[in-house]
Amino acid sequence: MMDLGHTPTTSQPSTSDEWDLDGDTLHEECGVFGIYNAPDASALTALGLHALQHRGQEAAGIATYDGKHFHLERRFGLVGDNFSDASTMERLAGTAAIGHARYSTAGGAALRNVQPLFAELDGGGIAVAHNGQFTNAMTLRRSLIKRGSIFQSTSDSEVVLQLIAKSRESNIVDRFIDAIRQMEGGYALVALTRKKLIGARDPLGIRPLVLGDLDGSPVLASETCALDMIGAKFVREIENGEVVVCSEDGVKSYRPFPRQPARLDIFEYIYFSRPDSVLAGRSVYEIRKAMGRELAKENPIDADVIVPIPDSGVPAALGYAHETGIPFELGIIRNHYVGRTFIEPTQQIRALGVRLKHSANRAVVQGKRIVLVDDSLVRGTTSSKIVNMMREAGASEVHLLLASPPITHSDYYGIDTPERENLLAAQYDLEGMRNYIGADSLGFISIDGIYRSCGYEGRNNDAPQFTDHCFTGDYPTALVDVDAAENHRAAALLVETD
Amino acid sequence: MMDLGHTPTTSQPSTSDEWDLDGDTLHEECGVFGIYNAPDASALTALGLHALQHRGQEAAGIATYDGKHFHLERRFGLVGDNFSDASTMERLAGTAAIGHARYSTAGGAALRNVQPLFAELDGGGIAVAHNGQFTNAMTLRRSLIKRGSIFQSTSDSEVVLQLIAKSRESNIVDRFIDAIRQMEGGYALVALTRKKLIGARDPLGIRPLVLGDLDGSPVLASETCALDMIGAKFVREIENGEVVVCSEDGVKSYRPFPRQPARLDIFEYIYFSRPDSVLAGRSVYEIRKAMGRELAKENPIDADVIVPIPDSGVPAALGYAHETGIPFELGIIRNHYVGRTFIEPTQQIRALGVRLKHSANRAVVQGKRIVLVDDSLVRGTTSSKIVNMMREAGASEVHLLLASPPITHSDYYGIDTPERENLLAAQYDLEGMRNYIGADSLGFISIDGIYRSCGYEGRNNDAPQFTDHCFTGDYPTALVDVDAAENHRAAALLVETD
Amino acid sequence: MMDLGHTPTTSQPSTSDEWDLDGDTLHEECGVFGIYNAPDASALTALGLHALQHRGQEAAGIATYDGKHFHLERRFGLVGDNFSDASTMERLAGTAAIGHARYSTAGGAALRNVQPLFAELDGGGIAVAHNGQFTNAMTLRRSLIKRGSIFQSTSDSEVVLQLIAKSRESNIVDRFIDAIRQMEGGYALVALTRKKLIGARDPLGIRPLVLGDLDGSPVLASETCALDMIGAKFVREIENGEVVVCSEDGVKSYRPFPRQPARLDIFEYIYFSRPDSVLAGRSVYEIRKAMGRELAKENPIDADVIVPIPDSGVPAALGYAHETGIPFELGIIRNHYVGRTFIEPTQQIRALGVRLKHSANRAVVQGKRIVLVDDSLVRGTTSSKIVNMMREAGASEVHLLLASPPITHSDYYGIDTPERENLLAAQYDLEGMRNYIGADSLGFISIDGIYRSCGYEGRNNDAPQFTDHCFTGDYPTALVDVDAAENHRAAALLVETD
Amino acid sequence: MMDLGHTPTTSQPSTSDEWDLDGDTLHEECGVFGIYNAPDASALTALGLHALQHRGQEAAGIATYDGKHFHLERRFGLVGDNFSDASTMERLAGTAAIGHARYSTAGGAALRNVQPLFAELDGGGIAVAHNGQFTNAMTLRRSLIKRGSIFQSTSDSEVVLQLIAKSRESNIVDRFIDAIRQMEGGYALVALTRKKLIGARDPLGIRPLVLGDLDGSPVLASETCALDMIGAKFVREIENGEVVVCSEDGVKSYRPFPRQPARLDIFEYIYFSRPDSVLAGRSVYEIRKAMGRELAKENPIDADVIVPIPDSGVPAALGYAHETGIPFELGIIRNHYVGRTFIEPTQQIRALGVRLKHSANRAVVQGKRIVLVDDSLVRGTTSSKIVNMMREAGASEVHLLLASPPITHSDYYGIDTPERENLLAAQYDLEGMRNYIGADSLGFISIDGIYRSCGYEGRNNDAPQFTDHCFTGDYPTALVDVDAAENHRAAALLVETD
Repeated sequence: MMDLGHTPTTSQPSTSDEWDLDGDTLHEECGVFGIYNAPDASALTALGLHALQHRGQEAAGIATYDGKHFHLERRFGLVGDNFSDASTMERLAGTAAIGHARYSTAGGAALRNVQPLFAELDGGGIAVAHNGQFTNAMTLRRSLIKRGSIFQSTSDSEVVLQLIAKSRESNIVDRFIDAIRQMEGGYALVALTRKKLIGARDPLGIRPLVLGDLDGSPVLASETCALDMIGAKFVREIENGEVVVCSEDGVKSYRPFPRQPARLDIFEYIYFSRPDSVLAGRSVYEIRKAMGRELAKENPIDADVIVPIPDSGVPAALGYAHETGIPFELGIIRNHYVGRTFIEPTQQIRALGVRLKHSANRAVVQGKRIVLVDDSLVRGTTSSKIVNMMREAGASEVHLLLASPPITHSDYYGIDTPERENLLAAQYDLEGMRNYIGADSLGFISIDGIYRSCGYEGRNNDAPQFTDHCFTGDYPTALVDVDAAENHRAAALLVETD
Repeated sequence: MMDLGHTPTTSQPSTSDEWDLDGDTLHEECGVFGIYNAPDASALTALGLHALQHRGQEAAGIATYDGKHFHLERRFGLVGDNFSDASTMERLAGTAAIGHARYSTAGGAALRNVQPLFAELDGGGIAVAHNGQFTNAMTLRRSLIKRGSIFQSTSDSEVVLQLIAKSRESNIVDRFIDAIRQMEGGYALVALTRKKLIGARDPLGIRPLVLGDLDGSPVLASETCALDMIGAKFVREIENGEVVVCSEDGVKSYRPFPRQPARLDIFEYIYFSRPDSVLAGRSVYEIRKAMGRELAKENPIDADVIVPIPDSGVPAALGYAHETGIPFELGIIRNHYVGRTFIEPTQQIRALGVRLKHSANRAVVQGKRIVLVDDSLVRGTTSSKIVNMMREAGASEVHLLLASPPITHSDYYGIDTPERENLLAAQYDLEGMRNYIGADSLGFISIDGIYRSCGYEGRNNDAPQFTDHCFTGDYPTALVDVDAAENHRAAALLVETD
Repeated sequence: MMDLGHTPTTSQPSTSDEWDLDGDTLHEECGVFGIYNAPDASALTALGLHALQHRGQEAAGIATYDGKHFHLERRFGLVGDNFSDASTMERLAGTAAIGHARYSTAGGAALRNVQPLFAELDGGGIAVAHNGQFTNAMTLRRSLIKRGSIFQSTSDSEVVLQLIAKSRESNIVDRFIDAIRQMEGGYALVALTRKKLIGARDPLGIRPLVLGDLDGSPVLASETCALDMIGAKFVREIENGEVVVCSEDGVKSYRPFPRQPARLDIFEYIYFSRPDSVLAGRSVYEIRKAMGRELAKENPIDADVIVPIPDSGVPAALGYAHETGIPFELGIIRNHYVGRTFIEPTQQIRALGVRLKHSANRAVVQGKRIVLVDDSLVRGTTSSKIVNMMREAGASEVHLLLASPPITHSDYYGIDTPERENLLAAQYDLEGMRNYIGADSLGFISIDGIYRSCGYEGRNNDAPQFTDHCFTGDYPTALVDVDAAENHRAAALLVETD
Repeated sequence: MMDLGHTPTTSQPSTSDEWDLDGDTLHEECGVFGIYNAPDASALTALGLHALQHRGQEAAGIATYDGKHFHLERRFGLVGDNFSDASTMERLAGTAAIGHARYSTAGGAALRNVQPLFAELDGGGIAVAHNGQFTNAMTLRRSLIKRGSIFQSTSDSEVVLQLIAKSRESNIVDRFIDAIRQMEGGYALVALTRKKLIGARDPLGIRPLVLGDLDGSPVLASETCALDMIGAKFVREIENGEVVVCSEDGVKSYRPFPRQPARLDIFEYIYFSRPDSVLAGRSVYEIRKAMGRELAKENPIDADVIVPIPDSGVPAALGYAHETGIPFELGIIRNHYVGRTFIEPTQQIRALGVRLKHSANRAVVQGKRIVLVDDSLVRGTTSSKIVNMMREAGASEVHLLLASPPITHSDYYGIDTPERENLLAAQYDLEGMRNYIGADSLGFISIDGIYRSCGYEGRNNDAPQFTDHCFTGDYPTALVDVDAAENHRAAALLVETD
């Protein structure tokens, strides 16, 4: 899900982990969830979204169908803050529900962009929630507007809805399939109609989607951790290019696209998915530890302590420590009370910067040669400050190791990456980056290293097992909108604050 | 503007004058305003809407165009509470603006129903605000949905927007005209495009719309009082069936409908328009006083004091007092601090009922024969309580006179009337009504009397000068949706709380 | 009740009638209410305060005792907005309650200044609400602080509470009397203890307080209109200098001060009390009409219409019209939807100024010689704008008559008057004022005229029947704090926003 | 700081980490901070409080003095959410400031209980913030009320303020000392007067307080991590029984109490202080690791993985892992987005319970013999659920080890412990506890073990180096209020919601 050039004029409250000094983090934009034929469907959906909250903390929404009406609630803020009170949950009546947790770009957005989106169709309604990004959304949007469609949001996800509404197919599943066949990009979709819960994954399976079972009720979720949360059993992954339809007749599978090998986004392993999730049969936590071990093999350093940059660097740091025998220590303490902290920092607070979220544990660091381990390096601004903080705390040497290769390209499949010119690795070579960061040494895992961590011998360059475009520039689909170079004009017509 | 069977599950705050004990009041549903080519267009629009606030207090919205973007702000509550702070007004940049003040039915509605509504069209955007009601909206809506349109609101006004978006005409004015030609009903519309401000009045001119001029900038408003507020000069009324287009080329007039005599809604004189407005060349205040005089001629009563039911009954009561020489006295004091008062009244408060808003001025009433004068009688519940309150305050006789005929039929052109079975005059004859109210006598002005008050000899039954359907059942247009008897199903699919 | 030099740094929302262009209105600062031994005591108190809302709209509070605990709720805003929901009213459990409606000076204040105030005493608690002002509060406050008292508010009312807490008397009534004996000024007080409801009026009876009866339950209220609201019978006024104590033993009267003739503040008749209230046996409405008649005798004008400045000028205008036979007409329409309107007016709105609240009814005014009637003239800024608005609407002559004498002195008994140098009548002679206002003529009722309107032959200068210090400078009590010229330093130590 | 029997009727939002299923956590109630003679004193105080946020997340307040006025802002919620916007910080003008972060008991409290508290004294004002609890507060409060003091809060901290106000000493430092000499208990106090910043620590030094220096400006803080946050140097700890006064004359030390050995609360090492703080010369992180090693020596277990209960159990688990060589693994993932989550959980959410905050990392746990390490065991409810969650995730053995001895006694010095009958270790013997928890084995560190972890040979029973009353019942001061057994009556007179 992506905002199409919309530049809202007010900011919505951002939540804890979004806070970063200068956008020096990657953000997955969404998590989706759906459940069919279960009592308390909305409460279960709220729990599922809570488990997926790491995929998007800005806003959340739930749609239900109670046999007569659809109910839709969309709110800014955390799921738990908005979908727990009795009155909200009572309004979300029904035994089928879908939900969406969303991260959004720069500074906020209007409520009408929050998902699920809803459309009244001839013969019923449909609610849709989307994780990912369509690479031809702008192009299709312009064409639909020419044909008289009115868009209610500036979200690229609405294009699917409009295509469904416009489809000449007679039944809802065919209309849904008709719509996604016109879309390019990476996506996991869940949709709710009066009689069905639908799930779909893009032809390459770039974004994840799993099927679970809760006492006979089918469940769809971005990650297995959402199944664990509600006590549902994992059944299987939705395959790349597959559409599943849950109804009174059980779960049916459709394959509207030509078969091809899956190419999951490798970043799901590196950063986005929760460590306790299992993705394509592999434990995310174990993959990350393996990356740490691989990192150690590729970048052995003579040091006193291994210090993870919390929390994302912890599993790789453990792997590094296990591989090398160097003690793993909490040399950086993370402050979990950042909240929406310091939204308008004074100059002084800005200068103290990184300490709002991380502080040095001097007892661990002082006089030591330390290896900092993190998952990835984006702009480098935070890393630079953390390295400096370690030196101020008395570290005698500071080495920075990353459990992913240098990020040299932007993403167009649902990850909010900086413009390419702001990616540190797109600006500098290794020594330039090291100098910018101020570390004694800087190291990255190799491209093949991450494939090895996943159990392969290395990257199969003829048919890569994953999509790794941020490291390689090897985009797995056409980038229609980018090529049309018209992104910026689209949908910027209206500026509205809710 | 009418809600299409939408039954929202939460209530928005209602504002002062909406508060009534049991819906015993008529409500106009909207006021519209537009200005073109004026600095501070949004501030002027806010002022204009403030002057039209009596036409709708539930919500308000303003749309502007700044040469590059449209800006839209819609809020629940009074104009002055929402459109006065610097940051909101700065966001509403531009020299052209339209605005809308809205009353809404039963208990509230979602923000997406608040106007202006906006659509991005091929080659530009359009914002539309609507006072009135379309009598074939549901029928058209169903047809549009069949053809793939997605509605963002449950408001009947959106049908116009969808028809504009779907029109095959090439320029925006032709598309607008193409759309309204398909609509039936009573309406005043203002619309804002990138280069034009458009105004339109229904073929019969049921709802009012005037053209003004502020230092060369054209202004559109539901009533002249909005022109007075901003210091604009009155130019002329928009004629029935006329479309005016304000652009850099000045104000152009279009006549897309066959010419026919106008039939303004007589209720604009009786109740809705502000007393200081001038409508069809007549002062509303003077008409109301004339109705009071006519009432006195038709219903002479031997009494000690004339007591208006404030505030709506004041001009007629003055007319009655002037005609008869009986003293006009404030026998009922109105509490203007009702606010959103007592939204959840306790049983005890409910029992004390009417006193929250009105209290007896015993010094005026005690031992006196009083004539209460009000503008109209709807359900009769409030009148009954006021009569009783007068008796408790010691009145020896209580007579109730109404400056309008008995209301026997519902409205379908933008007035929120109770179902017909709840209209007192549809249930009882005169004596039955008097008995229900508990007054010593009850009198109404005659149908011809109101026409005489407006300067005619009486009603021209062959070609009535106004529409007076609530008194006569003589509906001036087809009631397509009512006849299709399908109102209730439509648009009830989605229940969403903002 | 007066704020002691406290200059808060944020503003609370002001409510409708407080809105005035440049503070050109007088404000009574409070209304009080109490009820003993009645089911739903808090709901009845909310209703009573609603009826007293004209005496203060900024904030309100209610304290109850339920046999075990005191409950206290204090809120900014209208009574009806804050004391009607079920949960608030349930928290305010008990059969005895007191309440307070408050207007406050310049821009707002902290919640801790909102009344009732509460203190835990040895052997019980006490809640106190106060209308009026103590003229020696600062002096006593300084002395109490020296002795170790900690003040929780900057309200002068808290001095009473501190004196009660410090009193060496053994029972609560004696402690209360001990406290008020030390206070100077004008006040009506209600207090609630575990077993008693106490009411007290200052030795001269400057501020009003009445005793009512609701089915055997004693009621105290600032005005009779609050008794009418809840259906209670008027029993009698609390006399000047009287303390009444309502308990299981009935209502007992105490006379702790030397007897002296009462001197009610004449402004209660002129402006503050509600027209349907009866004060010292006289109908406020009838007194105001009598003032209008007296004004006509003293200032006969050859004019076409009498136009009240709404709403405060209406009764006097009716009196003037009745006396002279010149028609009474609504030449100015008041906009009741001002709300908290236009808190931050833009320059343009500021220029249009007075029209936000008042607009000219051109049909009445054009080409006419009009007499504007208002209750009083304070700074003159609003009057000047209204006169100008009348001229713009086409009036051929505009005369302004005031139903009170020129205000030349500030008040120190609970009315929020401008500093003396800002009172128009303290700056100019009659011709100077007329010139400032821009009227063709300007007239005031005479001092003796207002006494005649109240049924006297004139002012008894040896023993004036009322206090009329704002017109005469004849302050009826010592002005201890003013004489000590130390007002400004006191209590300005702390600035806190709630 | 302790609430005195106050049972408020509404709940304030609780923040993230407070959320626990059934109060199964210990809560420190406060952190304090002060700075003198520094530009941006309030911004630095906000940063300092942010670093101390782990000591209390319910509410925070800052008081400043700008040379003329004191400014006070108190808010519910996180420091970063409330003390970062420009307007708030501008209001908090001045170069001297104190601040307070607060946790509060069961369900919320009124804003007037939030600190700092303020009193206007003869000759100036004083603001006070307090961490800890006075064991004779109720007794003193009753005595003060008898003498005429009015309490503005129900907080025991206000007693200090009232004693200062009442003191007959002539200067403010002597009055402060006079006051604390009358108090019993554990406390760290900071106070701000017009010319001084005062800090004080109870005679035994039960609660911590340190002195720092920021470019010549003295700083006081509960922990060294707050000094690190603002870049201040650690100078020294305030000694037990010491009062320090920072003024233009520098930092002066007073010793108003007889000298005695310090007895820091051992819980500061075990749980409360932040791992990167240094307390009494010892790194909290290193002490906790040492406790883990000691735990391993006392409770060696043959297991496959060491799993910390995050986040509090991490350092001890690392120590255990280092000592034993068993791998440290993240077998439990903590959800940091709990927010104010699920304030009104549905029954279903309640059943899923512990997963909202913690989830099992099956890949680590399945088929393994695991040792769970946590810092302490209170009620046992959460531990029981976590043990069960580990079994459901496939653990073959689950052992629970605690890095503190069994908690058998309540605290009265500022820690919010359950009533004694709800402490698991007060109800059961070791086997009973193990059975309740459902673990295969349960182990605690010994009393001597924790002393050894701190560098001693063991507990000196004649003169214990710490206070460890929760484990031993050896309370270091008189428990005046407890002995008077009158806790419950006090201050419960008033129930007020802000």
